[in-house]
Amino acid sequence: MAADPSRVISQLRELAALTSDANGAQRIAFTPTWRQAREWFAGKLTGLPVERHRDAAGNVWVTLPGDSPRALVLGSHLDSVPNGGWLDGALGVITALEVLTSIADEFHGRPPFTVRLVDWADEEGARFGRSLFGSSAFAGRHSIFADRVRTDRDGTTLEAALRENGIEMDRIGDAAAEQKDIAAYLELHIEQGPVLERLGLPLATVLGTKGVERHAVTFVGQEAHSGSTPMSDRRDALAAAARLALEIYEIAGKHNDAVCTMGSVKTFPGIVTAVVGRCECTLDQRDLSAGVLAQMYREAQEASRRFASQHGCTVEWSRIWSIDPIPFHPELIALSREAIEETAPGCPSLPSGPLHDAAEVARAGIPTVMMFTQSLRGISHNKIEDTTEEHLRLAVTAFDRLARKTLKWLSTH
Amino acid sequence: MAADPSRVISQLRELAALTSDANGAQRIAFTPTWRQAREWFAGKLTGLPVERHRDAAGNVWVTLPGDSPRALVLGSHLDSVPNGGWLDGALGVITALEVLTSIADEFHGRPPFTVRLVDWADEEGARFGRSLFGSSAFAGRHSIFADRVRTDRDGTTLEAALRENGIEMDRIGDAAAEQKDIAAYLELHIEQGPVLERLGLPLATVLGTKGVERHAVTFVGQEAHSGSTPMSDRRDALAAAARLALEIYEIAGKHNDAVCTMGSVKTFPGIVTAVVGRCECTLDQRDLSAGVLAQMYREAQEASRRFASQHGCTVEWSRIWSIDPIPFHPELIALSREAIEETAPGCPSLPSGPLHDAAEVARAGIPTVMMFTQSLRGISHNKIEDTTEEHLRLAVTAFDRLARKTLKWLSTH
Repeated sequence: MAADPSRVISQLRELAALTSDANGAQRIAFTPTWRQAREWFAGKLTGLPVERHRDAAGNVWVTLPGDSPRALVLGSHLDSVPNGGWLDGALGVITALEVLTSIADEFHGRPPFTVRLVDWADEEGARFGRSLFGSSAFAGRHSIFADRVRTDRDGTTLEAALRENGIEMDRIGDAAAEQKDIAAYLELHIEQGPVLERLGLPLATVLGTKGVERHAVTFVGQEAHSGSTPMSDRRDALAAAARLALEIYEIAGKHNDAVCTMGSVKTFPGIVTAVVGRCECTLDQRDLSAGVLAQMYREAQEASRRFASQHGCTVEWSRIWSIDPIPFHPELIALSREAIEETAPGCPSLPSGPLHDAAEVARAGIPTVMMFTQSLRGISHNKIEDTTEEHLRLAVTAFDRLARKTLKWLSTH
Repeated sequence: MAADPSRVISQLRELAALTSDANGAQRIAFTPTWRQAREWFAGKLTGLPVERHRDAAGNVWVTLPGDSPRALVLGSHLDSVPNGGWLDGALGVITALEVLTSIADEFHGRPPFTVRLVDWADEEGARFGRSLFGSSAFAGRHSIFADRVRTDRDGTTLEAALRENGIEMDRIGDAAAEQKDIAAYLELHIEQGPVLERLGLPLATVLGTKGVERHAVTFVGQEAHSGSTPMSDRRDALAAAARLALEIYEIAGKHNDAVCTMGSVKTFPGIVTAVVGRCECTLDQRDLSAGVLAQMYREAQEASRRFASQHGCTVEWSRIWSIDPIPFHPELIALSREAIEETAPGCPSLPSGPLHDAAEVARAGIPTVMMFTQSLRGISHNKIEDTTEEHLRLAVTAFDRLARKTLKWLSTH
C-alpha cells in the first residue's frame, strides 16, 4: 500500500497546532517545545514493529529491521527556528514515517533491507548558532572545541543545554556509530526559495548543496566633511563598496544558479555630514561547481581592488566561513528524477543554496539525494511559510516512489 | 601699525597649551575648559579701551567705541569639538583681537566707527547637537522649544548646562538686542577642506555658505535567503541604494562646487545570509545656488525612484534638515578679494560647505563676508588640524586689510 499523503498533511497540522503560537512554530532545539514535538512523534510509532533510540548527539533513530542489516535511511529534522513555519524539517520527518509505515505494511513488517528514520538534532542552530549539530556529529565532523564556548542570548551554554537534554558534549562524536550499515539516505524538504513557484512546478530533484565562500570585505578611504570636500577629492569607501554591491550581479550572472549576496554594509563614521571613511561589507557566494565558486571569488576580489583604487581606497578581505560544494549521488539523482517524472512530469533538477543535514550525510560517504517541493512565495523561517496541499500530496507520493526505487537499487549495489 | 601675525600665532599656541590634552582641544561649550578659555581671553583685553559683556545667549562682546555708534564686528568662536584642533574658531577670535588692537592703536583709541569683537557661544553644538547656538539667538532664529529637550550623553539637559553658565533658556532671544548699530561683520576661519591645499594657495574669499538638503532615503525590497534566491528573483534594497550612492557623483558633477554625500547606510536584516530587505541611507546635498540645490534634490529623487523600480523596491524620502544658501555681501566680497590680492595674489573665491556663525549674521540682514585660510590635508575637528605659519601670517595680514577697507566702506554707506 502506497504512502498516504492525507495522513502526512493531517499529522503536520497536528504538530503545528501543538508546537506553534501566534508567531509560528517554536520547536527550537533543546527547548521544552522541541522535546514535546519529539514525544508527540514517538507516540505516532505505536503499533509499528520498530526500535527507537536516541544517539549520543541527540538524533532520534527509528529502525524497522529488514532481512539485510544494510539500511535505507529517511530523515529530516523536527526542530524549527523561532517563529518558524509548519513544513521546514517537519515535512521530511513525517513523510519519512509515512513511507516507513507503508513499506512495513507492504512487506508484512520485514522488508528485504532495513529501513530507518532519523530526526536530526538541531538542524537550525537557531539558539546557539551551530547549525547541522546532530548530523555533523553523526558524520564525524563535530566541533566540540568551538561549540564549548557557545551560549544563547541568556548566557546559557550549549553544553548546559545539551546536558539538560541528556546529551554529554564530550560524547557527541559517538553518534558516528550510527553510520554502520547505512547504504543510502533520502530527504524530502521544502525548497525555501522561489524557483519552483516561478516555474509553476511542484517538485525538484536536488543535485547537491552549493559550496559557500563567505567573506568580510572592508574598504578604507578617508573620512571627510560632507560640506567642504569636493567630489573629486573624496576617498569614499562607500562608493567603492557600492560598485562591488552591483558588480556581484555581473559576476553571478555568468553562471546558472550561482548566487552572490552582500547582506550587510556598515559605514563609519556613519553620520550624515561625513564622507564614509570605512565601509565594512559581507559577501556570500555560492555555487554547486567548485570551479565556478573559485572563479566568482577571484573575480569579486579583483573587482574590489579595482573599485578601491578607483576611489582612492584600500580593501581587505577576511574569510568568515567556507564549505566545498557537496554533490549528491548520481544514481540516486537518477532515481529521484524517475520518481518525480512518474508523479509530476517536467520537473527540474536544482542545486540547493541552503545547507541541509543531507550534506553532512553525503560528506560521510553515504549515497544521498534530496527532493524539494515548492515553497509559496519562496518564504521559509517565517510563520507564513506554506506549500499547497496539492504539492504536498505530490511530494509524499514522489518521495515514497523514490524510497521504493532505492530499496530495489540496494539489491544490486 | 598693522596687526602682528606673530602675536596671533603665539597666543593661539598659548590657548592650545592651556585647553588641550593629548587628544586635542577640549574647549567644548558650557564646560569648565571652555570657561577657562574665555577667562584667558578676557585677560588679553587688559589695557585696551574696551568694554566687555556677555549677552543673553552667552556670546561675549568686546566693544571699542568709535566716533560713530555704527559698528564693524569681527568674530568667531572659542569653543571646539571634543578632541579638536587649535585653529577652528580660535584663529578668528584671536585675529579679531589683534586687528581690533591695531585699529585702536592707529586711531589712538578712538576709530571713526565702533569696532566690536564677538566670541559666539557654542558654534560647534558638539555636546547638545545644536550648532550655531549663540549666533542663532543673536539672529532671532533661536529654537527654544526644540532646544529644551536636548540632553548630552550623560543626560544633562542643555537648559541645565546653560543655567550652570548663567544663561536662562527663556531669555536667549534677548541677544538680538546686540544687532543694534552693527553695520558689517567679518570672520576669518580655516577652510576645513582640501581645496586651497590642492590649488597651492593660502587664502580665499568666501562667497557664502551653501544651502543644504539633508534627507533620509529608505529603500524597501524583500529580505530573502542568500542561498536559495536566484539573482533574477531578488528585490535587493542594497543594490538600489548602491546605484544612488554612485549616481550622486554624476548629479553633483554637473555643477562646480556642488557636493552630494551618502554618509550612512544601514542594512536590514543586515546578516551575511540574507538579501537586504530594507536599506536606510542618508543623503546630504549642498550648493551655493538655490537653483542648483533644487535641481540636485529633484534629480536624486528621480534617480532613486528609477533604481528602486529597477530592483523591485519602493523608496521613501524624509527630510532631516534643510537650509537655504546664504550668499555674502557683494561689496564686502569685493573688498575681501582686494585685501587678499594685495597680500597673496591669485587666490580664489569659494563657497563654504560647512555652516558658520557668519551665515546667521548674514541672515539677520547684516552685510557679511568671511575669509578662509588653507587647512593642511583638509582636516579639521581633529588634533592634527593644522595650517602653516606662513599661511597664518598671510591670513592675519589680509584680514587686517579687509577690516580697514571695511571701515572705509562704512564711511560711504
